[in-house]
Order: sequence, then C-alpha cells, then structure tokens
Amino acid sequence: MMNSFGHIFRVTTWGESHGPALGATVDGVPPGVALEASMLQHWLDRRKPGQNKFTTQRREADEVRILSGVYEGQTTGTPVQLMIENTDQRSKDYSEIAEKFRPGHADITYWQKYGIRDPRGGGRSSARETAARVAAGGLAREALAALAPGLDIKGYMTRMGVHEIDREKFDWDQIEQNPFWTPDATAAEDWAVYLDDLRKQGSSVGAVVEVVVRGAPAGLGAPIYAKLDTDLAAAMMSINAVKGVEIGEGMRAAELTGEENADEISMGNDGKPVFSSNHAGGILGGISTGQDIVVRFSVKPTSSILTPRKTITKSGEPAEIVTKGRHDPCVGIRAVPVGEAMAACVILDHLLLHRAQVGNGPRGTIG
Amino acid sequence: MMNSFGHIFRVTTWGESHGPALGATVDGVPPGVALEASMLQHWLDRRKPGQNKFTTQRREADEVRILSGVYEGQTTGTPVQLMIENTDQRSKDYSEIAEKFRPGHADITYWQKYGIRDPRGGGRSSARETAARVAAGGLAREALAALAPGLDIKGYMTRMGVHEIDREKFDWDQIEQNPFWTPDATAAEDWAVYLDDLRKQGSSVGAVVEVVVRGAPAGLGAPIYAKLDTDLAAAMMSINAVKGVEIGEGMRAAELTGEENADEISMGNDGKPVFSSNHAGGILGGISTGQDIVVRFSVKPTSSILTPRKTITKSGEPAEIVTKGRHDPCVGIRAVPVGEAMAACVILDHLLLHRAQVGNGPRGTIG
Amino acid sequence: MMNSFGHIFRVTTWGESHGPALGATVDGVPPGVALEASMLQHWLDRRKPGQNKFTTQRREADEVRILSGVYEGQTTGTPVQLMIENTDQRSKDYSEIAEKFRPGHADITYWQKYGIRDPRGGGRSSARETAARVAAGGLAREALAALAPGLDIKGYMTRMGVHEIDREKFDWDQIEQNPFWTPDATAAEDWAVYLDDLRKQGSSVGAVVEVVVRGAPAGLGAPIYAKLDTDLAAAMMSINAVKGVEIGEGMRAAELTGEENADEISMGNDGKPVFSSNHAGGILGGISTGQDIVVRFSVKPTSSILTPRKTITKSGEPAEIVTKGRHDPCVGIRAVPVGEAMAACVILDHLLLHRAQVGNGPRGTIG
Amino acid sequence: MMNSFGHIFRVTTWGESHGPALGATVDGVPPGVALEASMLQHWLDRRKPGQNKFTTQRREADEVRILSGVYEGQTTGTPVQLMIENTDQRSKDYSEIAEKFRPGHADITYWQKYGIRDPRGGGRSSARETAARVAAGGLAREALAALAPGLDIKGYMTRMGVHEIDREKFDWDQIEQNPFWTPDATAAEDWAVYLDDLRKQGSSVGAVVEVVVRGAPAGLGAPIYAKLDTDLAAAMMSINAVKGVEIGEGMRAAELTGEENADEISMGNDGKPVFSSNHAGGILGGISTGQDIVVRFSVKPTSSILTPRKTITKSGEPAEIVTKGRHDPCVGIRAVPVGEAMAACVILDHLLLHRAQVGNGPRGTIG
Repeated sequence: MMNSFGHIFRVTTWGESHGPALGATVDGVPPGVALEASMLQHWLDRRKPGQNKFTTQRREADEVRILSGVYEGQTTGTPVQLMIENTDQRSKDYSEIAEKFRPGHADITYWQKYGIRDPRGGGRSSARETAARVAAGGLAREALAALAPGLDIKGYMTRMGVHEIDREKFDWDQIEQNPFWTPDATAAEDWAVYLDDLRKQGSSVGAVVEVVVRGAPAGLGAPIYAKLDTDLAAAMMSINAVKGVEIGEGMRAAELTGEENADEISMGNDGKPVFSSNHAGGILGGISTGQDIVVRFSVKPTSSILTPRKTITKSGEPAEIVTKGRHDPCVGIRAVPVGEAMAACVILDHLLLHRAQVGNGPRGTIG
Repeated sequence: MMNSFGHIFRVTTWGESHGPALGATVDGVPPGVALEASMLQHWLDRRKPGQNKFTTQRREADEVRILSGVYEGQTTGTPVQLMIENTDQRSKDYSEIAEKFRPGHADITYWQKYGIRDPRGGGRSSARETAARVAAGGLAREALAALAPGLDIKGYMTRMGVHEIDREKFDWDQIEQNPFWTPDATAAEDWAVYLDDLRKQGSSVGAVVEVVVRGAPAGLGAPIYAKLDTDLAAAMMSINAVKGVEIGEGMRAAELTGEENADEISMGNDGKPVFSSNHAGGILGGISTGQDIVVRFSVKPTSSILTPRKTITKSGEPAEIVTKGRHDPCVGIRAVPVGEAMAACVILDHLLLHRAQVGNGPRGTIG
Repeated sequence: MMNSFGHIFRVTTWGESHGPALGATVDGVPPGVALEASMLQHWLDRRKPGQNKFTTQRREADEVRILSGVYEGQTTGTPVQLMIENTDQRSKDYSEIAEKFRPGHADITYWQKYGIRDPRGGGRSSARETAARVAAGGLAREALAALAPGLDIKGYMTRMGVHEIDREKFDWDQIEQNPFWTPDATAAEDWAVYLDDLRKQGSSVGAVVEVVVRGAPAGLGAPIYAKLDTDLAAAMMSINAVKGVEIGEGMRAAELTGEENADEISMGNDGKPVFSSNHAGGILGGISTGQDIVVRFSVKPTSSILTPRKTITKSGEPAEIVTKGRHDPCVGIRAVPVGEAMAACVILDHLLLHRAQVGNGPRGTIG
Repeated sequence: MMNSFGHIFRVTTWGESHGPALGATVDGVPPGVALEASMLQHWLDRRKPGQNKFTTQRREADEVRILSGVYEGQTTGTPVQLMIENTDQRSKDYSEIAEKFRPGHADITYWQKYGIRDPRGGGRSSARETAARVAAGGLAREALAALAPGLDIKGYMTRMGVHEIDREKFDWDQIEQNPFWTPDATAAEDWAVYLDDLRKQGSSVGAVVEVVVRGAPAGLGAPIYAKLDTDLAAAMMSINAVKGVEIGEGMRAAELTGEENADEISMGNDGKPVFSSNHAGGILGGISTGQDIVVRFSVKPTSSILTPRKTITKSGEPAEIVTKGRHDPCVGIRAVPVGEAMAACVILDHLLLHRAQVGNGPRGTIG
C-alpha cells in the first residue's frame, strides 16, 4: 500500500528517474469512459520540463502509452497501465551524489531507511515520479467529465518566495498565459524578473499553489478518516517538496473568531444553498458543501543549488556539495499540474466512494 | 475504511456524541505490551472537558474500559476494544438544531450526504469522537514505550487567535502548567484574559497547535503515498475543525530560498548525523531523519456562538440561529491531546510498517 | 486489517470468549436502513448454543446491543457498533488448558506466534467469535432487503461425518424443522441417532455446510483479486474449523470434461439468460451470472474430545489431555448461520463495490 | 483494490491477453534482495504454453522485463514493475466470440457487469493473466530465499479428470520429469494416453493441484480475517477456473471424528514440536504450526471445446458455439506453477506481516 493512493479509484505509481520507464497502474476505473493516449498527453505536456527558462532543461518526450484497460477507445473496467519511457537518461557521472548527501534532499533518508538507493537523478524520490500522477489525473478528469459534467479543476500559483499575488487582480483567463500559471498578470511580470535573477545565481525559491474544484456536488467525503479534506491533504502532502496544506482559510483560520469564520447560508434561486463566503473552502465536517473546494499547498525551494552547502559522505566524512547541471529554480511551477491531477484523483475517488455507500448524488434534499 | 486509520496499527473509531457509548477498535497491536485502563485514563483526563472555564462545561466521566485484547495486564495481539460510555446525555431539546443548519458546522453536509443525521450534540461530527482517538493514542504510547524507548511526544498551543507565542520564551516545563498547554508563560497569562473576554461574549476563536516527536528513529515513512508527513497530515486534518497542516517550515517554506532552507549536515559524536537546523521538520522525502518531527495544525473557531447568524431550515426557509448552552470558546485547547494522540498512532504505525518491509531499525549505516 | 473483512461494507470483529464482551464494528453501512436490535437478535438466536442436546451446553443470552450508527430506528451511515456481553463466564479452572496444548486446536499456534494467549474458553480462537459475525450478517441482511429485494440467503448441512444427504429428498421447508438445518428429513432422523451416540462417547465429527444465495443480480464480483468466489472462499475459510471451500461443482469440477461442465445458455421469457445447469455455482470469471450462488464448506470435528490424546506442555514435557465439560459434538451445526452471515456480508459488500465502479445494476444488456 | 492482493507484499496485476503487454506492479518488496530478470524468467518458462502437445500452441516468448525497483542487481524497496510484452497477437477473427457467449466462460459476466469487454483471447479473463502472477511469485521466492532460507515451495498435480495419483508412489523427484508435474510416474504415463485422446477429440478435462510449503516457520497468519489459510484460499480461488480449495484434509475433514483428526504432539530432538500426522495441513487457528503447509485446489475443464454447445448472442438470439483453434485440454497443468507462485506471495506477505506486529520469528517458545 506504500505506493498507492485512493480507495476505489486506486493509483499505484512506480518507476525511478533514470530507470527504463515509470508509470501508473490505475485500478477501479469506471467502464465506458472514452480514453485515448492523446487526452492524457495534453496534461503531461503542461507539466513537461524544459518548456521555458524557468524549468529544468532536462528534455523528456514524456510520451504516455496506455498498455491495458482500454478497448476500442473506451475503458473496460479493468486496470489501466500508463507507461512513460525515460528517454533522456543522460550518461552523467552520479558518483559524487552517490557518495554525498545533499542537504534538504531525500538522499540521506532513503539511504538510512533502505541501505540502498538509486542515486541517478534522485531515483524514486525525483519529481519525475509526478509525471505518472499527471497521467493518472488525466484519466480521472475523463471519468469526471462523464460522471460529473460541469466539474472543473484548476490550479495556479499564488506565491513565489516572498511575493504573493494580489487577489484583487485575480483573473481566471490569465492563468494559461504566463509561465507561472498565476492569475495575476502583474505578479507574472514581476516574478519573471525575480526568478530569472535567482536562476542566474543558481539559487532556488519556494512557492504556494492553490487548486480550486468548481462544480463538485455536495456530499463528497467519508467521515471520519476518509474526509474529503483529509484525503486532499494527504494527496498534496505526498507531492515532492510540499511542506504545508490548507483548506479554505487554512492556517489563517486560527486567527478568526466564530463570527468571522461562519459562512452564512441562504437559499439560492436554483434550490441549492448559497453561502455568504467560503472560509470553509467548500468542506464542512469532511464533506463537500457544493461550494468551490479550495486547497492550497506550499512547495519548498529545491535543494539542488549552486551555493556550496556543508554535508557528510556515506562514510561519515565532512564534505561540501554543489549541485551542478539542470535544475528548477522554482519547482512550485511544475507542481501546479501535479496538484490539479491529485485533486482530480481524489474527487473522482470520492464520487465513487459516495455512490458505493449512498448511491448517486446527495441523499438529503433541502426545501 | 471510512472510519479507520493506520496501515498496521489500525484504529477504527465509532460512536456518536449522545449515543450510549463511543470507542475505538484497535487492530495490529503488538503482543506483550503492558496495558491497564488507568494508563489510558491518564490521557483522557487531560482532554476531558469542564476542567476549567475555558472548555465546555459538559461533564463527562470519560471513563475508558478495555473490553478485549488484554490478558493479565498484557496485550495479546488480538484487537483491543476501548469503550467510553456517554453519561452526560442531558435531556436537552435538540429540535431547533435538528431543523436549522449552523453556519460553519457539519449539520448541513451530513444532511445532504446521508439524508439522515443524529442532531444530538452534533452526532458523529461532534468533537466528542476525539475521546476515542485519545484512548487509542494512549495505547500507542504504551507500545512505543516498549518498542522505541526514549521517544517522546508533546503537543502545545503556539497561537490563539491573532496572538502567537514568543519562541524566545519557549519552555518545555511550562506546558503542563497552564490551561492552554502553551510553552510561553507570558502568552498563557495574556490568553487567559483574552479568552475570558471572548467567552463572556459568547464568541470563539481559532488556534494553532504544534506537536513534536523527539527521539524517533531515522527511516520511518513509506514513500511515496504513505510518507510519514503524508500520514501525519491526514491524521491531523481528520481532527474536527482543523483547516491547515504544516511540517517543519510549513507554509512559510514557500518564502525561503534553497540556501535558507537547506539543513546542513555534519557528523555527531554519537555517530549519527547532526543537522544545523530543522526547516524540514525532521522529514525528508517522506522519511524521518532522526531529528525532531515537527507537525503543526490550525483549528478554526467553533461555529457554536451566541451572535445570531443567518441560515436556512431543512425546508429551505431563511432563519437565524444562536447556539446557546455549553461550548468551547477555543476548541484548539482540547485539540492538543488529540494531536498528540494522532502523532502517537502514526509513529507507532510507521515503526511497524518499517519493520515489516525493512526489519528492525534503519538498514543503512553512515560512517 | 487483521481482524476486518470487506471492501466497502467492512466488518471488524473483536473480543474473546471469556472477556467482558465481544462484538463487531461495522463501517460502510448505507444510510436509511431500518434497524433495531431485535432484527439482529433473530439471527443470533438461531446460532445460540444450548438449544438442544447437540450443541454446547454453555448458556449465553447472546443479547446484542447497537451502540452507534442508528438514529430513530434507521442507520445513519456512520459506524454501527454491535456488542454482545459475555454473561456465562463460568469460574472454571483453566490451568490445565493453559499449560497443555490440545491437539488440533489453535492453543499451540497462538502461543508460538504471540508468546501470550488467553486460555479461557479458547480466547480469541473460540467459535464464540462467530456470534459477532452473525450480528453483522443480520445487519447485512437488512441492507440487502432494502437494496436487493427478493434476494434470499439460506444455509443447510449436506453432510455429517460419513453421512451425506440424498439430493433427491431436498426440501427447502425441511431446513427449519430439524436441529441440523438439513433439507433431507430422513437424514435428519438418522443423524440424530448417530450424533447422540457420538455425543455420549465424548467424541465429535465433521460436517459440510452449503449456502445458497437466490435472487442475486448478475454482475457482482470485482476481478481479478476481489472476485466474488475469491471473497466467498476467504469468508468461509476464515470461520473456525473450516478446511475446504467449494463453489458450484467444487473439487468435483476436476473430474468433469468440458462438455459436462458447460452450463448451456438460452434466453428466458423474462429477458434474462437461462442456464441449463449450474456447475459454475452462479459465478463465471469471478462475477455472478444471476443464477443461484452456491458455496459449500467443510467443518472439521472439534478437537475438544473425551478420548485422551498425546500432547506436550508449554515447558515441552510430554502429556496427555482430555477435554472435559461442555462441547459441541458437531460444530458444523452452529456453522450454518455463520456461513449464511458471511455470505450476506460478502454479497452486500459486492453490491456496494459494484455500484462504486459501475453504478446501479449490471451495465451490459442482452437482447 | 480489485486487482491487487497481499497486505504488505502487494501485487497488482494488469493487462489483457491481446493488449500490448501485461504485468505486475509489486509494492512492499524488502530492500537488498538480489534480483535479475533471468531469475524470474526461470519460473515463467515453466508456465509457458506450447512446450508440449498438452498445452495451448500459442507461442509466447513470455520475456519478463524489470522496469523499476532494482538498482545494480538488488531491490531498493521501491515498487518493482514486471512487464511481459504480448508478441503472439495473432490477427485472428474474434467476431464470433465477440457476439456469442461461450458456456462456462466469463464472456457473459464481463459483458453483463461492464457493458464492454475485450473479446480478443478472453481479454482480462484469459489465463494469460497468470503469467504476471508467476513473475511476481518468482520475486517472492527470491525474497523468501533471503528471509527464510530452507523454505521450499512445490506444486504438482494429484488428479486429472477421474484419475487420481497413488499416494504410495509419491516421489518428489518425479515431479520435474513429466509434462504433468505429477509425483506419480505411473499416473504420468496413464495420463499421457488419456489426455492425448481428449485432445484429439477437442475435449478438455479438470484437474487437482496440490502445493506444499516446506520449512515455513511457525507463527505465520493473522487471525481472524487474515488467517494464513484464508489468504491461501483466496489466492488459489482467484486463479482462473479454480472451483475448490482445501487445506490439509480439506473437504474430507467433514468425514473424520475428533479422534481421527487430532494431530498428536510430541517434542522433537531439535526442540521443536513434532506432530504425529498432518490433517491440519500445517495450519491451526489460521496460524502455521511449522509443519508442511498443504493447500490443494481443483481446476475445472476449459470451456473452449470443439463439441458444439448451445448459447445465445449479445442480441439474445439462440446460437451454437464451437471453439476452434489453440486451447489447453487440461489447463490444470499450467496452473501448477501459478499455484506455487500464489503460495510464494502469500507466505512472503505473512512473513512481513508477522514481523510488523510481532517481530522476527515466533515470540512464544516451548520447552
């Protein structure tokens, strides 16, 4: 169970950064969903590195193949195997990384835990694993399109280092128009200058990514320990470099009073409840309210930097380390499609889990 | 699986606020652990409401009984059933709450999802469920005492509303000496005045709780989807009213550069790695480093307040609601022992999961 | 996960033979199912020992209490706790059994595995644990009555020792009219004499139990590793003393040719497929066909007999052992309601699992 | 969870008979196990069809590739992906099979359940899926070699149709010397004539396979619902065409008295318990005793036969069907290595599960 997530729609990822291939084995796929590799490729292309100067220059085709579970363009209900072959396994010398532990990196813990690790490109701990998540997320999106038409999932960056977006300038249409997937056009311009500077210095910086699910039905979430927010938190925290997860107000909820935090309820014209605000991030008691579901996570700066850092070798000797070569000055950028993919998987999983226990749609009516 | 957590040490809680009893069914308990009800009672007493004016005045004995899995004072390896009978089921009139949805409360979502809910005291969504977690956490602590001597778990409040503690004044010994379990004595004094005022107004406020695990071995955590931080995040987010979870730097990691965030490594006199700082919160790549494990979560203010809020009834009519009677002005206080309990369960679970796959202790040596 | 079964409708049993209580924690219960303790009591009364001279004379009220998950006579979708208190904990001397291992009994393996065991009445390995299964099975039956009206589950004995029933004399109405739940009235008479004789000798004998599910929809079963027959086999094999499980032709399928084994298909007047025979036992490729589902299991003779058997003590000394006191000459009798209960749980679980992945009812139509 | 088995050592198989590839995603692999593709190939070659006239003439290279989880010839503890490409996807006309349901085959149930199926070679329901099991079983064997030296797993046929082996002629060395993997040389000769005759008629016949695990430690098995026999029963029942599973005496246990069935215990010279017989099949109360573990299963005759059978079409019209082309007259033969593989996976899984809860080796000592 260590490399799987989801209750019904269950995704198991496998593969290392520089092995022959990596992928996702997806079980619990509803039958009859239209699926072709090109539909998944669309999302992988968004995540693909090397598309601009702000992401690692590793060039991977990231071409996904569907090896099972689809017949004549439709899912059959059997497991779907999504495989991405690694093509850019540059014949680099990994001997230094194999001997020294990078500060802030999983090098040391994989070694301590297992007593063996694949040092090439970070092995299993590489962000490359997230390509498999994006492929699985693409599949989840297609199933959601069939089962919950109108549901939409969108991620974007709200912070890069000390620079946060201005919520007043939030523009959904802006998101696809800048390399940072940020809804604030001014921030995008400022960040470009800021990040280019960091990149030239060989430094790196953290980010905050927000993912919003619009049009999700009320009633998703299986309290107490498969709450929708619980599963979203786990999904996001499992992404490389994530150190914090928030739902709605998140950490700032601590600063509010009960009066401030209460999202007042009235009845909408469409016979559904309307909320005066969304401090809750669309989830109450672990169950979706029908409002926008809002999840946010922080991504730490990558530990691969040009400034020398103190460390030790496997034999315990003191050493210094500098990570040369390709790296992402802000890995948060590439985390945007990954966060979307995780949200898609969790929402679909909960749709299926809900219909297992309760049936189609919410069971309680109001009015 | 909806009401269970843990991979090997697997806890299933059950019960409603005003039903006959609630409890935890605990599977995967190692055999031969010394266990008596009084050991668990100790932790339940910490969480028990009504101990001072800052927690709900509901008076519950919260007496835990061990119904199975223990023979002659030792666990046998069979499931341990921990039951707490509800004694203070005040014959209150729940008709108003049964008809109207409290803003910011699970009332509406339980109704929407299931089409039926137990309105008495919040039913299953009541914070009372956390008593079962604390009992299970007590059991986890006893098992940890046997399997990982020296390991210590401690929670405390670092923020109440807009007031944060001063880290310069951090004093471990202070934690048990104030009703807020805060390590900052000055904050404790200030918060007492602040909260008393809120309480009198019938208002409520949020909080931040931090839990630290000291003395955990390196190597715990099963990447990729049962990472130690992933499971801690899920465990904390599953607690009532929690809206954000952080590991180490948490959300603030987004603001750091790679240079700032890197915890440099040297070799300690005891042959173990020493880190210059702990931005990582003791976890790298989802696996414990041997440093203190630091997890933090925000608790929103309770939605049970005296100020009238706008809402609707089950029949869709507009209404106002005021929650009279017993309530917690800062539920974050009682979340401290709950956070500790969840951490204990997760750490024990990962100790067992680690020895399943790898054996006892980390497998890789340094030096 | 060691004491749980089921994917969605998930039952965890707990408790020892002579502890304060035992029970079942049931998760994944659909909301809105009418449920009262008396409905479960009906099935427990069928299983209850001491009802005639052919079952153990231990007298237990076996009164089941519903501690959670039900509000105003309906399930709420939250976990249902079913508790049965142990009342007849006769203050017997267990010192001999505590020291010597009964041949053919779990005494020795529980000791070897855990290094500690509760010897009173067999502790966790006692058939008493099956009371919790029957209670959970009763709950499953009520949910099935709501979700799959017309579905019926019935168990009966087809063999006692060397005596098998005559299938020509099969009479459904006979089953409830004899202490062996056998559909063959003549066999019932013969067995009464045979078993009374064995009982007087202090001996015991094995049995075969068959459970038939009529009216189950086609399409249940999640290949490959949650096939309906796989889960039924696991459910039955987990019952105390079971040593073999068969679906349809079972072991005898080995003796057939392809021509003999093929259940030919035609179209029924009701627009559903009709099969010329049911060698398959209602399951093909792990999925139900809509025919009767037929599962059969053998129950070994109890090891508690009056004839002295050679054994060893915990200290490794040779010894003889005789089990005095109350025992079942044919535990297979009491396994009938247990087999039914397990079938009810598995069928309900697969109904829920099917609607998770596929939706309500089979998705493919014929004709 | 539908296509996965195992608690810790968790195998998910994927792939269809005539898709591009099939395989097994294996999680929970202990680190540091020596592993190369050739080690797995050895076991796949045993199962490979077309090796003699008694198995299907489909010619598959069945070459397994390790795509992840191994570095420099050792497992790293990360998921191992085992892929087998399908090379002999003969461009056959599947239109008849796509329209008509073969009696005794999963055609009809896959259709009913999913409303879509891949008819080419049986799709997911093909016995070809078992190649993935054999590959995973090979991996399990290597881990067992490291963790439980001396443990040996061997399968063989004990019955073909109405012809059973003579236990007096049982010879372990004979097993590898005949195409039926039977330990009875005389039976092997007789069966060759018998099966050749059936093959020429285009008929098929069932079989019984027995798998014995020698040298397994006492203490394996997690009662109550992950008993060793429960998991073995599920594992075997999940194999295509299996209709019955037995442990030790199996169904015949029903015919024994308590005196006959009791395996008496004495103390061996090596300080371990010795049993006078093995009616229990090495498992008591769901936990291994240290004796040989004996599991047996029946395999029904394949439904692909030349004799016309009555059936219906997808549109509900009556029809006749004859399965031409390649088929196995006795699929039980190829089930032998599959049964061994399943046993290897279950035993390894329980070794890991045992050390999770209890630690290394049995905890209770005798003497």
